[in-house]
Amino acid sequence: MQYQVKMYVSYKDGILDPVGKTTASALNSLGYVNIGEVAVGKYITFTLDAPSEEKARAQIKDMADKLLTNPVIEKYRFELEV
Amino acid sequence: MQYQVKMYVSYKDGILDPVGKTTASALNSLGYVNIGEVAVGKYITFTLDAPSEEKARAQIKDMADKLLTNPVIEKYRFELEV
Repeated sequence: MQYQVKMYVSYKDGILDPVGKTTASALNSLGYVNIGEVAVGKYITFTLDAPSEEKARAQIKDMADKLLTNPVIEKYRFELEV
Repeated sequence: MQYQVKMYVSYKDGILDPVGKTTASALNSLGYVNIGEVAVGKYITFTLDAPSEEKARAQIKDMADKLLTNPVIEKYRFELEV
């Protein structure tokens, strides 16, 4: 079965997000003053062949911990679609 | 009304995604050979105060075109929640 995976990676609470802070301040400078805190993370998509959804999920967690995210400072969630 | 906005930015079709390509090749090197094309984009979240959903959507499109994305090479979609 081929799964379409969408993964959303963002900083854990309390971790400084310099890109988000800079983006917020640039938006304010452009006159968009009704904007609250901005966070900028990663949006990773890929396809994955796996025999079952369970195996797909296990492999995605493994890949996230080993390569796709930095577990010390980042959190993630993902969605699977057939 | 305060809206919680989630925006997903990715390259347009046909635009080279070097980070995605490198990630795919790194995953292959780690033994994950059942992975198809990988794309790495941005996941931007922020809050926005607006009098109506229509105005919120208009402002978000404006901000996306002016600052949050590069309309020449990137496409985006977003979700609003109250």
